[in-house]
Amino acid sequence: MKAINIGTPYLLFLGDAADPLAAKVAQGIKHWRAENCVGQLRLPDCHADVGLTDMTVAQARAAGAQTLVVGVANRGGIIAENWISVLREALEAGMDLAAGLHNKLADVPELRDTAAACGRRLFDVRHPSETFAVGNGKPRSGKRLLAVGTDCSCGKMYTTLAIEKEMRARGMPVDFRATGQTGILIAGSGVSVDAVVADFIAGAIEALAPANDPAHWDIIEGQGSLFHASFAGVSTGLLHGAQPDALVLCHEPTRTHMRGLPDYQIPDLQVCIDANLDVARLTSPRVECVAIAVNTAALTEADARHYLEETQQRLGLPTVDPFRHGVAPIVDAIV
Amino acid sequence: MKAINIGTPYLLFLGDAADPLAAKVAQGIKHWRAENCVGQLRLPDCHADVGLTDMTVAQARAAGAQTLVVGVANRGGIIAENWISVLREALEAGMDLAAGLHNKLADVPELRDTAAACGRRLFDVRHPSETFAVGNGKPRSGKRLLAVGTDCSCGKMYTTLAIEKEMRARGMPVDFRATGQTGILIAGSGVSVDAVVADFIAGAIEALAPANDPAHWDIIEGQGSLFHASFAGVSTGLLHGAQPDALVLCHEPTRTHMRGLPDYQIPDLQVCIDANLDVARLTSPRVECVAIAVNTAALTEADARHYLEETQQRLGLPTVDPFRHGVAPIVDAIV
Repeated sequence: MKAINIGTPYLLFLGDAADPLAAKVAQGIKHWRAENCVGQLRLPDCHADVGLTDMTVAQARAAGAQTLVVGVANRGGIIAENWISVLREALEAGMDLAAGLHNKLADVPELRDTAAACGRRLFDVRHPSETFAVGNGKPRSGKRLLAVGTDCSCGKMYTTLAIEKEMRARGMPVDFRATGQTGILIAGSGVSVDAVVADFIAGAIEALAPANDPAHWDIIEGQGSLFHASFAGVSTGLLHGAQPDALVLCHEPTRTHMRGLPDYQIPDLQVCIDANLDVARLTSPRVECVAIAVNTAALTEADARHYLEETQQRLGLPTVDPFRHGVAPIVDAIV
Repeated sequence: MKAINIGTPYLLFLGDAADPLAAKVAQGIKHWRAENCVGQLRLPDCHADVGLTDMTVAQARAAGAQTLVVGVANRGGIIAENWISVLREALEAGMDLAAGLHNKLADVPELRDTAAACGRRLFDVRHPSETFAVGNGKPRSGKRLLAVGTDCSCGKMYTTLAIEKEMRARGMPVDFRATGQTGILIAGSGVSVDAVVADFIAGAIEALAPANDPAHWDIIEGQGSLFHASFAGVSTGLLHGAQPDALVLCHEPTRTHMRGLPDYQIPDLQVCIDANLDVARLTSPRVECVAIAVNTAALTEADARHYLEETQQRLGLPTVDPFRHGVAPIVDAIV
């Protein structure tokens, strides 16, 4: 495996973001890895600001920036025409480019040719260029935690990054292992597992989270859900490749149906935990579900506290909102 | 979806097959679709013979051949140097080429250029070139049967082709739907599902087996096993995309461990049936397991009969060896 390994520090490119949400990738990188960011670059019509120093390409390079990261998405996830001169300038100044868009940097002839001429790298993190071995299922040392979900997009990345941060603060040996494009840009490495060829899902995760020191924790970002009719194959391969010691179930309690599938209900939490444990046991017989992480953003503080307490009581597992209240109880449960 | 649709009839290319087993793809095409084969082409040092008339490219073309199919595999599954002049001759004679090898016909410059110059098509059926939509999980009309397995390579393709043949003989409206390279070359169409990008496994199968007349059966070739630590993601997406009304469990009773995984045991048959039904119910709530198909090639006739009877009694499902005794009891169970 030729692993992605994006050079830091970053200059975050916010482009002409239509609103703050359009720059949520940049916001995530700044939130979780501020130490990896020298500044932000905004075009004249930019309506986002992640709170870093505004810099030109030359200023960022002088400050040591190794990579310009496209931290903005427009409609369609494409590379806009009016970004290209800045991206080219970054290459010519000696920086690599990284993006997690549907369109590839490498498919823009001007960027491809400039990168080749300048000896710079283009990281299209949504499109794995590595080849992976087929999963072998062999037991490996080290501890691994995987976030699973009742659905897609219910907080797996946030939860796993928060657990990594909490463990690191406690002095535990730990690494976040990214499986989606935003997570990869935050971590600077990882595998966009839903873009891997189907035969290699488990093998890609075995490569992402390899054998490690017995006390070391890999905190692996999950994807999809065993109960999502479009993506459960990815979630299954992730469970097998991860060989998790611990699962954390992520859940968004106000959703009325599975994301993108109006006819599919969100599964019951206990049913979802049991199904994930059943699948995970194939490669990790002693796996346990250690906690539930709930995204309560749509609830009032009182309703959130009530929901978390009721769920914790009913299922007998620590139940927290990582954003509102932190993940200390999850790490307590693991330790 | 730009579906694969290989022109028939075929000239089967046996090359310099080292032994009959090296030409098992050609043998499979001849066995299941003799009506689609005009002849075989063998190089001087060929040790296989599938029982068709030996023909040159020119003779095959005169007999109407539309496609030369590479029905032979050498070590490594590559396109041998000494095949290329014949393959090129076929293109120049007006035939397309089809192969299911690891190496692509389209990656051999001489073949790629000749095909372009002659306006011919190269079908690398192991490498899907179509793009698929994400699975939508919407109920669709028509009946579908999927073969699942305790392991890889335990008879799913043979079983599904045999069921298609038996149903057709009874006048039932039916199509075999191929999900692997040999099946695709036999059927002339299909999707090599283990080579699809992970996000699109279920969607590819929804496209492969679309809505149909209410009485029509799609008999879908399965891949892998929910209990195979390398490939269960593919099997999961296949179950969801297929929306099967009926499952047939395929099994090879003398295997001592999962294929390629010496530390993994073959699952218990009832456990395997229950797990497959659990996964399948997400998109097809009324799915049933209708039969067990056992590959008893490694057993004596007496031992095979004993094994089949004992299994049928124990699990309460029709249990047959499709090769030895046919699949009439399976189709009886469906009807």
